[in-house]
Amino acid sequence: MAPHQTPVDDTAPATKQRVDLIIFAAHVIPVAPRDVVLSDHAIVVDNSRIVALLPRDEAAKLYEGAQERHLPNHIVTPGLVNLHTHSPMTLLRGLADDKPLCDWLTQDIWPTEGKFVGPAFIRDGMTHAVAEMLRCGTTCCNEMYFFPDEACAVLEQTGFRAAVGQIVMEFPGVYGSGPDDYLAKAAPNLEKYAPGCHDLITTTVAPHAPYTVSDKSLQRVDALAREHKARVHIHLHETASECCDSEALNRASMSCHQSDQKLRPLANLKRLGLLSDHLICAHMTQLTPAEIDEVAAAGAHVAHCPSSNLKLASGIAPVTEMLHRGVNVGIGTDGAASNNSLDMFAEMKLAAILAKAQTLRSSSVPAVDALQMATLNGARALGLDKDIGSIEVGKRADVIAVECDSIEMIPMYSAISHVVYVAGREHVSDVWINGKHLLDNHKLTTIDETQVKQTVREWAAKIFAHRTEQKTEE
Amino acid sequence: MAPHQTPVDDTAPATKQRVDLIIFAAHVIPVAPRDVVLSDHAIVVDNSRIVALLPRDEAAKLYEGAQERHLPNHIVTPGLVNLHTHSPMTLLRGLADDKPLCDWLTQDIWPTEGKFVGPAFIRDGMTHAVAEMLRCGTTCCNEMYFFPDEACAVLEQTGFRAAVGQIVMEFPGVYGSGPDDYLAKAAPNLEKYAPGCHDLITTTVAPHAPYTVSDKSLQRVDALAREHKARVHIHLHETASECCDSEALNRASMSCHQSDQKLRPLANLKRLGLLSDHLICAHMTQLTPAEIDEVAAAGAHVAHCPSSNLKLASGIAPVTEMLHRGVNVGIGTDGAASNNSLDMFAEMKLAAILAKAQTLRSSSVPAVDALQMATLNGARALGLDKDIGSIEVGKRADVIAVECDSIEMIPMYSAISHVVYVAGREHVSDVWINGKHLLDNHKLTTIDETQVKQTVREWAAKIFAHRTEQKTEE
Repeated sequence: MAPHQTPVDDTAPATKQRVDLIIFAAHVIPVAPRDVVLSDHAIVVDNSRIVALLPRDEAAKLYEGAQERHLPNHIVTPGLVNLHTHSPMTLLRGLADDKPLCDWLTQDIWPTEGKFVGPAFIRDGMTHAVAEMLRCGTTCCNEMYFFPDEACAVLEQTGFRAAVGQIVMEFPGVYGSGPDDYLAKAAPNLEKYAPGCHDLITTTVAPHAPYTVSDKSLQRVDALAREHKARVHIHLHETASECCDSEALNRASMSCHQSDQKLRPLANLKRLGLLSDHLICAHMTQLTPAEIDEVAAAGAHVAHCPSSNLKLASGIAPVTEMLHRGVNVGIGTDGAASNNSLDMFAEMKLAAILAKAQTLRSSSVPAVDALQMATLNGARALGLDKDIGSIEVGKRADVIAVECDSIEMIPMYSAISHVVYVAGREHVSDVWINGKHLLDNHKLTTIDETQVKQTVREWAAKIFAHRTEQKTEE
Repeated sequence: MAPHQTPVDDTAPATKQRVDLIIFAAHVIPVAPRDVVLSDHAIVVDNSRIVALLPRDEAAKLYEGAQERHLPNHIVTPGLVNLHTHSPMTLLRGLADDKPLCDWLTQDIWPTEGKFVGPAFIRDGMTHAVAEMLRCGTTCCNEMYFFPDEACAVLEQTGFRAAVGQIVMEFPGVYGSGPDDYLAKAAPNLEKYAPGCHDLITTTVAPHAPYTVSDKSLQRVDALAREHKARVHIHLHETASECCDSEALNRASMSCHQSDQKLRPLANLKRLGLLSDHLICAHMTQLTPAEIDEVAAAGAHVAHCPSSNLKLASGIAPVTEMLHRGVNVGIGTDGAASNNSLDMFAEMKLAAILAKAQTLRSSSVPAVDALQMATLNGARALGLDKDIGSIEVGKRADVIAVECDSIEMIPMYSAISHVVYVAGREHVSDVWINGKHLLDNHKLTTIDETQVKQTVREWAAKIFAHRTEQKTEE
């Protein structure tokens, strides 16, 4: 045999195994196990799930993909999980800014929602948001808004994954007349999308906030969620005034309790039986150490929304302390009306660097933790960590590719650091959900981008005209 | 005359005026005057300067451009001014993160700089940084690093604008043997690039920090700067420990002062005569209200670097309070080793939203102020506001175009809000400096991107190999 002749590989299989998809990547960050970067690896996908994760050359020997994607200048990570958002609010992106929260809600957001939100608004806004999320590397969101049936229809159509909140409020609004109505509308979806019933959709029961839902309704919410093994998704301890108001409210109204009892919303949820491992609390900027321990002990989950919390002047959630005390913290963008984007890359970086200034320790929330928060922790919060959140054999193939060869991405000494501190949403080139290629080299495959733009323009024109008219009348 | 026939315009000039360039844009934010958005306007440029800013149709009637650029889906703003950076450190982007500042410097940054920084490193790193800044909408930077002659050569070659710091340190390093040497090297550049002498380059004298430059050398720096009408650019009150150490140092060593005198660095600079309207202070996270008043009274300028200050756990500069008390505050990215990018769009948004959480007022640092900080305030700090920082007749044509039609940029209710809260670096399509088209529809015109990437890869390989070797030896 000549010295350089390739030896016959006796171990090679006679025929390669046919699979749906092989993704060959320069760098794979599986997230689990922690702090690992695999160079020149392949993710083998069949029937929507990851069936192998192995070195590129071995994969090429063993498998043949109906589709094969070569990513020689890319980092592949699990798809990002946006743990708190109101997707259709993309249509209200930048409607008003830099105003006190109360004015912003009462002068801008609520009147506009009241006038425009309906099934068509949800359908168009949700489609727009899914387009944005896919382009930005998000593969799953924890959704809370009105007309959830419309959101589900868009998810089916676009192939996007979400836990769709079945909203509950005390007061009549565009979507329901009151608690009875909201809860009645929630029940069929909780049934239809019960855990394991659908490839993409699960549900939560989503009481808006402690200050918009009564104690009695919160108890009914909890009973319904438990009956259907669903999570409860609520805004909690978002602002200082929410906590103060709650104390006042409790003192004044709860005749069944001692008059001097000062219950903050978290304590009240505990009293009502909602503080458990099926509770997802969005925001949580106002927490005492004892409250953090309560959350940790209950196994409840937190959706940290740093951009929204800063922009609305709500405060800074004590993330380092929460992680240290064992709370599962994921990351969310909140709605585009208060962010003003659905960019999880910006949130990851902000979560990591904000924690350092807050604790005055530059080692707080290292990149590896921020990435885990934005993926696996989000999946855990949704009860979906058996299926998504990391690149592991057996899980669904929800993965994204981040290009790392552009001017602002080089040089690269650590792929994990780069994904968190350097990469932007614009570096996401490819996205798969359930192994389906939804973003193919920056192009959406299930959404007509031109059509979305046209529809959004039409909504914006209507909304703008209405606001101009209102201002003229004033 | 038929009803719809276009009337002959008797006021049209017989011949249009020939100019170098006309930029037709859907939206122009001139920055001065404040809070104005001009729809369907044109910026007319001749001989590197803006000669007219007027409605599109009028411009089309009056002028004919040797080059004309139509931007029907874009916002045009002044180019961003990065008020504090160490450009060539792009080559150390993401070298190490999430470590205490002292370990990061002594274990990672300083040893690597000691081994690799030299003229070639500066040339290649500066070219890389200019490529990144242009792609991200920055047209001018306030630069502080070693071998400034090399930086100037790159600016000449690429057409980028900068105030190039002539570094001064007390101790010998890669670029100088001590204060005498640094100051001697500074003098010729201060002469060559004196105000008004060069189309792109000005200089500053850049003593690194109060803790790395002696009082005596700071006084020599100030004298040299005054002689040449140059600014002084220094790191100041970056961390709490800098201020504490300074108090200790002053107590222990200043025999000419009372032993109980506790001078913080700012007070010491005032004592030495440096606190004036030609001082640019980078960082300033640690300031008492009285110190803010001192800075305001002196007319000194501040470079706010929010990402770097968060990431290195330095703290949060009291920007709202500074602006309120009349301090001129611009925005900087710091070097890419501590950011880890040169993305001024990210800094603008962070400056705006961080101020709101810090003050618990969502009206703090509104978008209009953040944009002014990133443009006109930066120009003022550099003494360049007669030439750049806003889109006004007579100023140099340093302007950028931000595409506003992509999925994540729509809808748009306010162009100013969108530039700050929604746009990313990736939306910058075109950049002009002195009317020269340096980024043309996302393509660099004076820099060979492929060559830059190759060069950066080579540096990264050398740096990575050296670090691996060092770790093996340990």
